[in-house]
Amino acid sequence: MTITIKDLGEIELLSRLKKFMRYGQIDDDIAEINTTNKSLLINTDLLVENIHFSEEISNAKDIGWKCITTNISDLICSGSANIISFTVGLVLPPNTHWKWVEDLYEGMSEAMQEFGGEIIGGDCSCGETKIISITAIGAMTPPRLHRGNALPGDYIVSTGFHGLSRLGLALLNSEQLPSEVQISHELIGRAINAHKRPYPALKALKALIECKPESISWRAAGTDSSDGLIDAIRGICQSSNCQAVLSKTSILKDPDWPDDSLWDDWILNGGEDYELILSLPKGWAEALCKKFKSAQIIGFIKQGKPNIFWDNLEKINIEQSSLFQHF
Amino acid sequence: MTITIKDLGEIELLSRLKKFMRYGQIDDDIAEINTTNKSLLINTDLLVENIHFSEEISNAKDIGWKCITTNISDLICSGSANIISFTVGLVLPPNTHWKWVEDLYEGMSEAMQEFGGEIIGGDCSCGETKIISITAIGAMTPPRLHRGNALPGDYIVSTGFHGLSRLGLALLNSEQLPSEVQISHELIGRAINAHKRPYPALKALKALIECKPESISWRAAGTDSSDGLIDAIRGICQSSNCQAVLSKTSILKDPDWPDDSLWDDWILNGGEDYELILSLPKGWAEALCKKFKSAQIIGFIKQGKPNIFWDNLEKINIEQSSLFQHF
Repeated sequence: MTITIKDLGEIELLSRLKKFMRYGQIDDDIAEINTTNKSLLINTDLLVENIHFSEEISNAKDIGWKCITTNISDLICSGSANIISFTVGLVLPPNTHWKWVEDLYEGMSEAMQEFGGEIIGGDCSCGETKIISITAIGAMTPPRLHRGNALPGDYIVSTGFHGLSRLGLALLNSEQLPSEVQISHELIGRAINAHKRPYPALKALKALIECKPESISWRAAGTDSSDGLIDAIRGICQSSNCQAVLSKTSILKDPDWPDDSLWDDWILNGGEDYELILSLPKGWAEALCKKFKSAQIIGFIKQGKPNIFWDNLEKINIEQSSLFQHF
Repeated sequence: MTITIKDLGEIELLSRLKKFMRYGQIDDDIAEINTTNKSLLINTDLLVENIHFSEEISNAKDIGWKCITTNISDLICSGSANIISFTVGLVLPPNTHWKWVEDLYEGMSEAMQEFGGEIIGGDCSCGETKIISITAIGAMTPPRLHRGNALPGDYIVSTGFHGLSRLGLALLNSEQLPSEVQISHELIGRAINAHKRPYPALKALKALIECKPESISWRAAGTDSSDGLIDAIRGICQSSNCQAVLSKTSILKDPDWPDDSLWDDWILNGGEDYELILSLPKGWAEALCKKFKSAQIIGFIKQGKPNIFWDNLEKINIEQSSLFQHF
């Protein structure tokens, strides 16, 4: 028999969710964190069905993984390598199956086992559409990464490949690909996995922290590429009031990625990649690429009105990069 | 001309919301709090249109006030007299007027001016229904109030009147009243105000902290009466595994409240009252009632399987009190 959350009622539903939490909404409505860290980073993300996730292409476990990992990525790209806790606000239609809710929380638990943190509380309500509202709390560890911390002379570093998640989405949606080329089964697998199970750059952040040359201060700019590689760099340029010059040949692609320029837009503007995009003093950038193999210097920062160029001085259309408006 | 959020687009919308935040979602996706408090209390509440609020009876400013104050009440009834910060997740249909959003945040700001705290970040998305997801953070100050802290011999204290918000809701909805009696304009005003502008018991908590006799430890049980007076006491009895005996004559009513037993159910189970319901050692309960004039001892705690009785040993139907299931 399929049990819906309407069958359960709110009290039984909350009681069943208790096993996923340290302590939460049952005996008290409030969660508590104990920390010796003076500064905490807080991030709230909303995931709305059919806008941020679709049950046609992702199951509940994948959605649970994704809503925790995308939120963790925001903490990581602000400099938090220590993920402490989450609260989960859940809006569900009354006919939602309990199994779906359980799988959602299991996907969240898998992500927390991988990256840290625990669910400490939340709230539940019925509504017409499924909505997941996650607030994540992390401890601040230096460097505090801000988009606005870049300086002329910095090197721009990407911690991994781009475009895979966009390709995965296209494959899952049976969209037309940029051109008719044969793609390998391995690439298909990696692309679908990148879309369904994004993997935030926690290891890259830890490497960044460990490899800083002593002679260099903790100043670093950073963001994640959740809205695309170019959008991440645009954000750094705008917040830091500077220009970026990118080297097209340095932007790494998956080894099986088609060698066809029609596919470049997904590398640049695909989105949902969750790599760290950093602007670092030269010595630190070089140390990171040495320590963390998938990191690559892809350009540099120079003075000037916020803009992005290729190293042949060709201007990059940064307006096109804002594809992630949700209204 | 009426500006909708679709006209504005996400970036302009977030930019306009910036004035309501210390710093937030614009240059970085993350918020930061600095605190010297070792323990923080965190609460997430969801408010869904037509379930938790209705635009037919509340304007956007009232809704903004209410979503902050109901959340603050959860912090207060856990023992936090120091409200630090909020994140706001907002789901809005694309045709939502900007003015509505601005008024919502102004109502939130009014509440924060009254009780403390500031908005430090959040997220926005479009969706079919308006949904407001608030995460509030407060610093822990002793006593840490838990529902599960009551002990036999404690006195039960209510910090104010009950039933007003339920009457206000009935008046705003033109519902039939429990009986046909004349009610004063003053009561009507207080009832509507109690429903639209709930006022959490921060002053009562501060009085509780200040009046504790030195000879007594910080152990105290507490919750708010957001789901009704009886439901609050039921929660304490269940979590503390004890019984409550209530004195019907001690339960305070608004001076203009109809002297008609048909109206009692709204006092007992009306909900949305946001008073503190405490279980305290006798000396502390008496000190609180002396210091804080609207506080009143309404019963006591005794050993036994969780249940609530009147002092004539009549059993109170505690099943009926669970009126606030949202599925």
